Amino acid sequence: MNADLSALEARLASDRARVDAWLERLFNERLPAAPQLEAAMRHGVLGGGKRLRPILVYATGRALGASVEALDAPAAAVELIHAYSLVHDDLPAMDDDDLRRGQPTVHKAFGEATAILAGDALQTLAFEALTLVEHPRLGALIRTLAAASGRDGMAAGQALDLAAVGGHPDVELLAKMHRHKTGALIRAAVRLGALVAVAENDPRLSALDDYAAAIGLAFQIQDDILDVTGDPAKLGKASGADAARDKPTYPALLGLDGARAKARALLDEALASLAPLGEPAAPLADLARYMIERDH
Amino acid sequence: MNADLSALEARLASDRARVDAWLERLFNERLPAAPQLEAAMRHGVLGGGKRLRPILVYATGRALGASVEALDAPAAAVELIHAYSLVHDDLPAMDDDDLRRGQPTVHKAFGEATAILAGDALQTLAFEALTLVEHPRLGALIRTLAAASGRDGMAAGQALDLAAVGGHPDVELLAKMHRHKTGALIRAAVRLGALVAVAENDPRLSALDDYAAAIGLAFQIQDDILDVTGDPAKLGKASGADAARDKPTYPALLGLDGARAKARALLDEALASLAPLGEPAAPLADLARYMIERDH
Repeated sequence: MNADLSALEARLASDRARVDAWLERLFNERLPAAPQLEAAMRHGVLGGGKRLRPILVYATGRALGASVEALDAPAAAVELIHAYSLVHDDLPAMDDDDLRRGQPTVHKAFGEATAILAGDALQTLAFEALTLVEHPRLGALIRTLAAASGRDGMAAGQALDLAAVGGHPDVELLAKMHRHKTGALIRAAVRLGALVAVAENDPRLSALDDYAAAIGLAFQIQDDILDVTGDPAKLGKASGADAARDKPTYPALLGLDGARAKARALLDEALASLAPLGEPAAPLADLARYMIERDH
Repeated sequence: MNADLSALEARLASDRARVDAWLERLFNERLPAAPQLEAAMRHGVLGGGKRLRPILVYATGRALGASVEALDAPAAAVELIHAYSLVHDDLPAMDDDDLRRGQPTVHKAFGEATAILAGDALQTLAFEALTLVEHPRLGALIRTLAAASGRDGMAAGQALDLAAVGGHPDVELLAKMHRHKTGALIRAAVRLGALVAVAENDPRLSALDDYAAAIGLAFQIQDDILDVTGDPAKLGKASGADAARDKPTYPALLGLDGARAKARALLDEALASLAPLGEPAAPLADLARYMIERDH
């Protein structure tokens, strides 16, 4: 392992630990009214995970000069939205998955009804978390998270995904689906981190949004690639699941080499977008490389 | 019909029309990314309903001197949370209901996966809606709505309800369940209306919360009573459903007369709570009587 990569991984581990501790405190602050629901919520969000979205919040905020304390709430909020979406996506009526991060999915461990409620309450907690740190642009933070999550973002992407299973979408429709399903929340993570530091009319927001859009799609393509080539032990889930479900993927549409070339082009685009930000954006560049070269 | 009742009903109809128009505009503002999801969301929230929670937002805010324009966003937000909860409660894994307000439930009309997503996106839209009107106490509004909806409120109540089916809870546990399941959001409606007009430390908030807690439970008891005695044509759903599911109810625990006496005592409590607010609270008193004397 080279020294740069080792420094990056140390920072990622530290950000992960930081958001995990903040999430844990969020649950510990008040006694749960319904213990089973609480256990299911914890299972859904505290069971590990890459914490990519909080890491993006921290990295973007730091690059623009925000204090790390001011970034905790948005970092936790975006992870809570991500966690709620996984709990609901895994449901029998959706992807019907039994395993997530090597553990039983929430509905496998707690039953379907409790899993629906746990996802619901994780979403609620995301918006509540955003209000726990005083912030002059709270309205913009809430709107950013909501636009990425609901009918204009993730939920719409999941609906497009459902409609696409078994069909034969082209690359354009596939990109639209991913832009909503996973891209929107990754862009929100970057925007939330930025909005903690700078106002909505700061010109760097647009450069950062280009960066986020490119890594968001590249990340999804890498996910599709790993579903074909990945090691199930490292992934914490079965590989080959997309093909078994007849889900449209980039490797299916472009071939493995074509998908890899596309991910690489998007990485170059992401790095070029960061140019106006100069040296402070170097950690964001490292992160983009890391996300797209990952093997799990 | 006496003149007072007729004036009250005219105001209720006007508030209903107002929040419906605001909800409709919320959907029309932007083109939907996923048309099926959009149709399911509209079906879930625009298909009629008593609009009791928005009416409480308007009535409380007006009693404290808020402008009606400043009340639209919280009124819509609380109805969106209510609508999302109905969509999810009706799911096969939850109450498995086919009809709601005389129409097919969302999962019956659009399938289970789309119904889960529609509920999710309605919740997101609730928090987004709150930000659409500039407000100095936005953090308090978001926290109020979140606390009433998630692990400390409605979702917890639904989890307690699931755990209670087929068991034999006493009146105390039943009250705890309803306090979370329906009471919390009714209290939030009153608090949201109040917070639009006055600061969090205004002493009237506590009197209004006592009022809201009493009418919230009384409303639920009346629901239980109507499930036994109500006319299915007026209710828009089958009566006798609670008993058929072995759900614990007030009439089952206290008898019909006992349940009616309890609802009446809570109404008296609600009216007494309003005393410190004087004449401006008269419409809130009318509303309490109306809610508890309703036949559907």
